[in-house]
Amino acid sequence: MNFNKSKGIVSIKDLSREDILSIIKDCEKVKEEKKFFPDNKNNVGSNKKVASLFFENSTRTRVSSETAAQNLGFYINGFAGAEGTSVKKGEPLIDTVRMFEAYDYKAIIMRHELAGAARLAADHLNIPVINGGDGSSGHPTQTLLDLFTIYEEKHTLDKLKIALVGDLKYGRTVHSLIDALSLFDVEVYLISPPGLDMPQWRITDYCNMSGKKPIIASNLKEIVALVDVLYVTRIQRERFPLGIEGEAEFKKILGLFYINKDFLERYAKKDLIILHPLPRDKNNMEISIDVDNTPYAKYFIQAQNGLHLRESLLSSIIHSENLIINHNHNHNHNKRLPGSLNLPIIDGQKKGDKFLYRLDEGTLIDHIEVNLGQKLYKMLSLDKITDAEVVLCTNIRSKQYGRKDVVAIHKLILTPEQLYKIALISPKHTINIIKNQKVIKKERAILPSPLYDLLICNNPLCISRAEHKEFARSIFYIESDDPLQVRCHYCEEFFTRNEISIAF
Amino acid sequence: MNFNKSKGIVSIKDLSREDILSIIKDCEKVKEEKKFFPDNKNNVGSNKKVASLFFENSTRTRVSSETAAQNLGFYINGFAGAEGTSVKKGEPLIDTVRMFEAYDYKAIIMRHELAGAARLAADHLNIPVINGGDGSSGHPTQTLLDLFTIYEEKHTLDKLKIALVGDLKYGRTVHSLIDALSLFDVEVYLISPPGLDMPQWRITDYCNMSGKKPIIASNLKEIVALVDVLYVTRIQRERFPLGIEGEAEFKKILGLFYINKDFLERYAKKDLIILHPLPRDKNNMEISIDVDNTPYAKYFIQAQNGLHLRESLLSSIIHSENLIINHNHNHNHNKRLPGSLNLPIIDGQKKGDKFLYRLDEGTLIDHIEVNLGQKLYKMLSLDKITDAEVVLCTNIRSKQYGRKDVVAIHKLILTPEQLYKIALISPKHTINIIKNQKVIKKERAILPSPLYDLLICNNPLCISRAEHKEFARSIFYIESDDPLQVRCHYCEEFFTRNEISIAF
Amino acid sequence: MNFNKSKGIVSIKDLSREDILSIIKDCEKVKEEKKFFPDNKNNVGSNKKVASLFFENSTRTRVSSETAAQNLGFYINGFAGAEGTSVKKGEPLIDTVRMFEAYDYKAIIMRHELAGAARLAADHLNIPVINGGDGSSGHPTQTLLDLFTIYEEKHTLDKLKIALVGDLKYGRTVHSLIDALSLFDVEVYLISPPGLDMPQWRITDYCNMSGKKPIIASNLKEIVALVDVLYVTRIQRERFPLGIEGEAEFKKILGLFYINKDFLERYAKKDLIILHPLPRDKNNMEISIDVDNTPYAKYFIQAQNGLHLRESLLSSIIHSENLIINHNHNHNHNKRLPGSLNLPIIDGQKKGDKFLYRLDEGTLIDHIEVNLGQKLYKMLSLDKITDAEVVLCTNIRSKQYGRKDVVAIHKLILTPEQLYKIALISPKHTINIIKNQKVIKKERAILPSPLYDLLICNNPLCISRAEHKEFARSIFYIESDDPLQVRCHYCEEFFTRNEISIAF
Repeated sequence: MNFNKSKGIVSIKDLSREDILSIIKDCEKVKEEKKFFPDNKNNVGSNKKVASLFFENSTRTRVSSETAAQNLGFYINGFAGAEGTSVKKGEPLIDTVRMFEAYDYKAIIMRHELAGAARLAADHLNIPVINGGDGSSGHPTQTLLDLFTIYEEKHTLDKLKIALVGDLKYGRTVHSLIDALSLFDVEVYLISPPGLDMPQWRITDYCNMSGKKPIIASNLKEIVALVDVLYVTRIQRERFPLGIEGEAEFKKILGLFYINKDFLERYAKKDLIILHPLPRDKNNMEISIDVDNTPYAKYFIQAQNGLHLRESLLSSIIHSENLIINHNHNHNHNKRLPGSLNLPIIDGQKKGDKFLYRLDEGTLIDHIEVNLGQKLYKMLSLDKITDAEVVLCTNIRSKQYGRKDVVAIHKLILTPEQLYKIALISPKHTINIIKNQKVIKKERAILPSPLYDLLICNNPLCISRAEHKEFARSIFYIESDDPLQVRCHYCEEFFTRNEISIAF
Repeated sequence: MNFNKSKGIVSIKDLSREDILSIIKDCEKVKEEKKFFPDNKNNVGSNKKVASLFFENSTRTRVSSETAAQNLGFYINGFAGAEGTSVKKGEPLIDTVRMFEAYDYKAIIMRHELAGAARLAADHLNIPVINGGDGSSGHPTQTLLDLFTIYEEKHTLDKLKIALVGDLKYGRTVHSLIDALSLFDVEVYLISPPGLDMPQWRITDYCNMSGKKPIIASNLKEIVALVDVLYVTRIQRERFPLGIEGEAEFKKILGLFYINKDFLERYAKKDLIILHPLPRDKNNMEISIDVDNTPYAKYFIQAQNGLHLRESLLSSIIHSENLIINHNHNHNHNKRLPGSLNLPIIDGQKKGDKFLYRLDEGTLIDHIEVNLGQKLYKMLSLDKITDAEVVLCTNIRSKQYGRKDVVAIHKLILTPEQLYKIALISPKHTINIIKNQKVIKKERAILPSPLYDLLICNNPLCISRAEHKEFARSIFYIESDDPLQVRCHYCEEFFTRNEISIAF
Repeated sequence: MNFNKSKGIVSIKDLSREDILSIIKDCEKVKEEKKFFPDNKNNVGSNKKVASLFFENSTRTRVSSETAAQNLGFYINGFAGAEGTSVKKGEPLIDTVRMFEAYDYKAIIMRHELAGAARLAADHLNIPVINGGDGSSGHPTQTLLDLFTIYEEKHTLDKLKIALVGDLKYGRTVHSLIDALSLFDVEVYLISPPGLDMPQWRITDYCNMSGKKPIIASNLKEIVALVDVLYVTRIQRERFPLGIEGEAEFKKILGLFYINKDFLERYAKKDLIILHPLPRDKNNMEISIDVDNTPYAKYFIQAQNGLHLRESLLSSIIHSENLIINHNHNHNHNKRLPGSLNLPIIDGQKKGDKFLYRLDEGTLIDHIEVNLGQKLYKMLSLDKITDAEVVLCTNIRSKQYGRKDVVAIHKLILTPEQLYKIALISPKHTINIIKNQKVIKKERAILPSPLYDLLICNNPLCISRAEHKEFARSIFYIESDDPLQVRCHYCEEFFTRNEISIAF
């Protein structure tokens, strides 16, 4: 198994297909045992402590996690909701979680309203963190119990048709689920009301990882006739405008996604199973109560599996012999050192005499995309250089690119940070190091991965954003250089060149 | 003992006199043991779990229940207040409680703001439910500890004079208490401010059950001189109008019910004991703090008995060998099948020729009370019949009744639901089945008990009301046919013919 | 050891220097043991119960107290925040805490917003109370862990320079700390923003107890170069005016107290240690996060010591053999009986003929300070006497005092309460008892200590104030007769003659 259990479970992206299958096998054993010895106390936890930190509302995740811990003999403390805690006094997340580590808690189970909160906590701790939901980013243990339930019913996670239905924009459970499904040989269908679609980057992410496209569907009747698993999520009233028009629109949408016994008996595939992370909202039931006793309904079993899954997970995480805790997740994130690509010096020398000036010694940044020269000039803070000549040439004719920008700097050796900024802004650049009017080196700057402190995450709910004041250092992974694709360490969203902001 | 302990304690109405005395005896033993072995851990609960679900505020009931469970070795989880739980997201009560059953909790202790909530939960669960208060409907474990305290002090529950003082309208503790007192040979006195009287139906209920009338009193001085037990409840400011006039009225009322040491020493019977379910409100003390150290004051002992009683109860409920859980309460509710009463065919035949038309074949509903024919016509949806003649005759002369209404329907055989509606609307009706112009059968429809899905409970805070969206199927017990008296399965309030609404 | 552990820890004033050192030694042992046997369960608590009653927000104090209790094998119940409890229904504090005692809880850990709350609770209980903060009055276990941390780092509590920085007005931790420091041979520096200074009475109290003056400082640079310990507290935004001007002022102040790594490396004494009770406020960090990993920062170790200290304390409190619980604190409060000082009858007789009237028999109160005669007259309710002559003489020439007031009352013997009032109002009075026109006794009334029901505490947040309705009987200790100094039993603030109000 690749997965380092002693880290905890921060994101589904940290797990491989093998990890997931192994977790499912473990859970199967635990559930089987419980059947025969329901009150058998597993004494893993004797006098050990687990912190249960729910900065956001929860019943099912909190109670099943705490019950799992208790079944294992752990003592639990923490809070359910941030009311009545020092979080209300503005305590930084990392101070709060470090306190529990200092009090010798052996693991932290947490839910938080910001994306990447569990990752930030894990980065600062030497004890495992189990993510019980971070904003609408993810909910990995929910996904594991979802997969366990599917496996239990279908005896496989491959060759299945699985539809995700409802609010696919904000629903964290479907976000982690689609991530996990990319590891299996399944067909994914997505059905959501307008405005509540699966975020585009998640779809791209799924395509990249699975090599397949999810099918965007709209007709629930056709879908239930087709799929093996229907995963339904709650559509929340607050996602729609206020007032009676918003109410009407909401009710109309809700009607399109309403599932009852009659509907299923008429249209559904015989062995269709329906999952739902629960709770349902009694004011707006997407699944009628008359479905509960049909063979389609597996959501109560699914909820119950939450206990088994969390018990199994917690037991193996805390039992884990692998005590080297290293919270840096490396799934899909090949670390690489910063550096540069050496380019051949084609014409042996480059005097710069083709330009409007001569550069005897210094750095000449060539092949900058047209119109980006000015941006680069600013980014590199060249306007603040007072003791050297700097020349910015824009819209120059180029054999290779038609037009280009060029920046020449007298006697300057670029710092690593400046090199990274060039790489971020202009991927096709060439850096010429000139000495005695000759190009002695020709290279292209390459971004290190991870890239620290240089980018600002575009996701307003990412915990790394300055306005949240959570002291989460900016960390991005370079997933592709050209076209540039970077992924935030915390919220795991990925961005292209046009979507990133550079901190300067 | 009649009482099935494994059901839990949902309503005091489920218990007989013998049940209550047996519970008191059990509690006596537990309290005695504690005296000698205060820290003796009863290991009933080893690794078992009890859910403590307080949808509404509580300190005493919650803490004493949880402490009792802990003393028995149970693990407790749940919530104190619905904040921070999925109840806030609109989760139906039955989904919430089923989750705890799925997580293998062995019992549920709950408080909820709607009447009948504990009953609804119990109906959907195979584990015992202990009702810690459902709206202003009832609070059975409080009543048991009240009775235990009285028994402990007076060594009997018979031949006592007991006064209930204060808010008798909304106070759930006095509601359960008067129910229980109907099983004992006591004289009950009721003293309350205007507008906060004991609901009339509860008084009628008490009369029916005990065969005695409670004495409505108004002068506290006279009462304390007379009674053995004074049961005082809190009068809440919010029951009175806002503003300074309301405040003045409230203060005036409060003055009338104010009890201090001086008052008691002047007027009270020597061995009077004072009970109070607590808390007192420091802003409006109905019992002065100087009473606390008098021999009259038993409310702190009463509070302490809450722990003993709940420990004893929880132990016997979970120990119970009687594992057949059947939550249908049957105290006072003799179930009976639906059916009809055969009436003699007096004149051998009934041709209908006395009427304005002839009925050759079909059903003739005779002896409908005057003016109810029209209502019945609508209720039976006869206006929607298009393929048969229907004749409604109103205000017809009758030998028996002076005037009557009659409905004749060609070729129709009534459905059971239609028969129930006739029985509900017109108790003195006669149904004639006519074939070949002859009455071949003459009968009177009888309501089944329980009666499902036909009536709407008149209590706006009953959990079965549609506006609460809690999926509680309408269930009523027929307590009397003529005059009709029906009792709601959930809130246990009973209604007469004029008070019921029919769902159609 | 003087300190009666079985009382609990209500105020730092209850402890002597020896008590504190002994507690530190105990904690050292506990911490050492934990290092080697981290999960060793101390079975003090087997099946015993500890109540954790946090009427006010807390994370660190609550969690470390509960974790300590759990490590000792206790069961914990109570509440975190008064929401969802009967406190919200106006239950008096003493009713709430007595309930937990009745449920056989072995100790109460509590935090409350009013000064003296823990004292009031302790007065009514036979189980130990551990004060986790009462308003801005004190936080004794925090102070013990602060002192433990200093001792651990500096190996002594004497010969140190210690600066208290930040909000010294409302910060309860610095209030208890300065109290404790008065017992050690240290130099105390105080630095606070304008308006947030240490209350004057606390400074006087410190001076009286230690015989030294704290040094009021303003330049943080100079202080960090000088002191061994910097104790920083949070400056809260809400202490400043609303609006943008208030915001600007707040930010300016905050800047003056801002500590970062660079500042420390430039200015701080090499072995300076920084303590902070935490939490920090992420919106307004007084200590930059970059200090966290410097050797100066001891605040996380300090937080962790909270667990060890509370575990050690709880263990010894509940283990204590000294089972006679007597919550009357006697540190600095020499109890004395009420009485009077006999004065010599200098001229053998006093006929009263020097005045404007003759007193044949009765009481003559002489040597009342000018202008206080009228006040005394009212206080003694002499205007309500109808059956005896009362003469009030003001501004009379006196050999001893220049001018004086005199009150003569025919045939009256003063009650003890009247004598106390005379002593409170006019310390230099002489009481002449006259019989047959002769002075047969000459005395001066002396106040008893404690003094019950006579004074009103001047601290608006003291729990004894009538407006809080907490039934805390007025109790004051006489610390000095002339000039008069009295100390409130609850909030421990002391007052002079001009600051007291008399209840009449």
